Amino acid sequence: MNQEDYYAWWQRNDLCYRDGQLFFAGHAAESLAGCFGTPSFVYSANRVRDNLERLHGALRAAGLTGRYSLYYAMKANRFAPLLTFLKQSKLCGIDACSPGEVEHAAACGFRPGEISFTAGSLSAADLKTLARYEGLFMDCDSLHAIRAWGAIRPGSEIGIRVNPGMGIGRADNEKLLYAGGLTTKFGLYEEQFPEALKLAASCGLKVVKIHFHTGCGYLTPQLGQLERIITRCLGFIEQAGDVRRVNIGGGLGVPHVAADQPLDLERWAGILYRLLGKRGLHVEIEPGDYIVKDAGLLLLSKTFAERKKDRFFVGVDAGFNIAPEPACYALPFQPLPLRYDGAPCTAATVAGNINEALDVWEDHAWLPDLTDHAWLALINAGAYSSSMASSHCLRGAFKEFLLFS
Amino acid sequence: MNQEDYYAWWQRNDLCYRDGQLFFAGHAAESLAGCFGTPSFVYSANRVRDNLERLHGALRAAGLTGRYSLYYAMKANRFAPLLTFLKQSKLCGIDACSPGEVEHAAACGFRPGEISFTAGSLSAADLKTLARYEGLFMDCDSLHAIRAWGAIRPGSEIGIRVNPGMGIGRADNEKLLYAGGLTTKFGLYEEQFPEALKLAASCGLKVVKIHFHTGCGYLTPQLGQLERIITRCLGFIEQAGDVRRVNIGGGLGVPHVAADQPLDLERWAGILYRLLGKRGLHVEIEPGDYIVKDAGLLLLSKTFAERKKDRFFVGVDAGFNIAPEPACYALPFQPLPLRYDGAPCTAATVAGNINEALDVWEDHAWLPDLTDHAWLALINAGAYSSSMASSHCLRGAFKEFLLFS
Repeated sequence: MNQEDYYAWWQRNDLCYRDGQLFFAGHAAESLAGCFGTPSFVYSANRVRDNLERLHGALRAAGLTGRYSLYYAMKANRFAPLLTFLKQSKLCGIDACSPGEVEHAAACGFRPGEISFTAGSLSAADLKTLARYEGLFMDCDSLHAIRAWGAIRPGSEIGIRVNPGMGIGRADNEKLLYAGGLTTKFGLYEEQFPEALKLAASCGLKVVKIHFHTGCGYLTPQLGQLERIITRCLGFIEQAGDVRRVNIGGGLGVPHVAADQPLDLERWAGILYRLLGKRGLHVEIEPGDYIVKDAGLLLLSKTFAERKKDRFFVGVDAGFNIAPEPACYALPFQPLPLRYDGAPCTAATVAGNINEALDVWEDHAWLPDLTDHAWLALINAGAYSSSMASSHCLRGAFKEFLLFS
Repeated sequence: MNQEDYYAWWQRNDLCYRDGQLFFAGHAAESLAGCFGTPSFVYSANRVRDNLERLHGALRAAGLTGRYSLYYAMKANRFAPLLTFLKQSKLCGIDACSPGEVEHAAACGFRPGEISFTAGSLSAADLKTLARYEGLFMDCDSLHAIRAWGAIRPGSEIGIRVNPGMGIGRADNEKLLYAGGLTTKFGLYEEQFPEALKLAASCGLKVVKIHFHTGCGYLTPQLGQLERIITRCLGFIEQAGDVRRVNIGGGLGVPHVAADQPLDLERWAGILYRLLGKRGLHVEIEPGDYIVKDAGLLLLSKTFAERKKDRFFVGVDAGFNIAPEPACYALPFQPLPLRYDGAPCTAATVAGNINEALDVWEDHAWLPDLTDHAWLALINAGAYSSSMASSHCLRGAFKEFLLFS
């Protein structure tokens, strides 16, 4: 990526340079860093709302009005003010994947009926907690879960999470493969599906929903594969008989580098309408990344800037433990100076403060002379960052702020 | 690995089956799980002491008596009772890599003079905290750090962390490469070393120690490379003039699978004596893994056991977020049943309760019929587990216990 691309691809109305100053959610990033201190995650409420409304718009335009539901995957970011903002926006329910997440969603204002629950490996203690939430909709992902939920809520409606044996992954990133060629822990495969239906019937459960997670971070080039996965899952739906709802999970991606094009929502929603809505099925989606990732900025202080051997390093005051995606999942958070006037930049490595080799935020940042700069911002820090933070090396301190512009 | 090897390679006096029961640190693992609940990390104080004494024994036998220091790398495991046990054992000091770790070491009883501090990317706030600890020994890893420490403690003795441009890594695991062919953020390279010495002198700092981290998890086959790295670093030592101490960091590994042979300590210590001790240099080491990894067991409850497609899955009540090494660093924690009588086993995948594809503890576990089993234990869970735990998916709960047998 050259300097021009580096500074062009991510700019938008609420995240851009104005008169040489980085603005985010209506605020000068320098004012935010100066006031809040670092490391701080800042989230734009308006961007979150825009992302949700863009999804709603595409789904409605495709002909799905009144025939879809949107659950926000709270594991992407569970910051309480953000969840309550979502509740009040009425733009989504919650996709929860643990009893703790159900309790936290409730704490932030969501009713059990607004929560879609899908998780694996539920313990007896998990089930006991979940049983207290009357109205919670359960997607069972194993024979074990069907048996257990049947004992707790005989006569209730459930979903079954199935595994189509194919998924959307990045060839270079097997950690993000949910359901590819390998047999994974997720859902019921076709080999066990008849037994699952029999078991549900024998427990007095009605299977009204089929759930499958298609992959992770998909963009337009992967929509063909999405179509193939959904098509394969139609077999499960027919086999189950009375299924009225289909949940295709999350996985909608956002661009991470200049070469990524945003997901073509019109085409995406068209697939959902053509393969599912048109058949009279209610479509559920569970985006996480798509809603919050590009609505978050991580503000950091510069600690040092100097040459080591042949490379220029810029150090910052936080490491991969407060946001593991760049280091652990190879998903870059592009670093930006808070002031930029188009002057020539140098290629730099931006590194964190953890004593580990993988703790590098970005290997190829284009940065101007930072002598007079106190801070840096990392974009795309709104998802799977604070929610996965650890106190590794006792470097776990950070703050979070929900911004209204 | 066949079933026999699976159950043979890790057994030792304080971790073995007796009359079909898994015993750890003098306790039946079933009693521990039953009393403590799960997920629980249990640590054997005796094993920790044995590991330390084995190192001391090898260093003394090699002729280094009185000419070496051992600092435990607390980032491996900072459980407070464990740290205080180490303090009282008088067998080691502390290797700290953040101001928070210095404070925590102090909280657990260590004096500043017993702490070796090496970290990168120090912020102004970090330096302010460190400055309060009179007697703390600082290894500077950048020109920035030399300048900053010179301003805080002019006239003091320091170490300089250097980067020999080579390291010990696993070819299959670039995340664990500290100092290979790529230019990393760690230490001063030879290109900047003369400037570093000049800068130290101009700040009134005396460089009495050279620090370099050689790699991660090395075993006997890597000792040749260790020798080459130390040899290369002799150049830095000569150049610096008055260096009396050399810190070779940590990185001593422990076996993770049957094919791994334990590190040949005699040969290892011999290298340190021959290349460093014999030259009159005081040798410092900073092991973490070697001290605590095999002294820890993670006790988990079985949540389900069933076939999915062609594979047998066993679910447990915790996922990679409370111990990331197996999922994120490809370092297996072998799962064991708490009862085993040699009966034929089945190959099983042991998976956690996090809704992510990488959340698998072990793909090829040999497990007996677990119908009557409530729990499983994972070995080698003593290092880089609880210390890196996150609350991802709000599944972050666990307990820790220090066991005396």
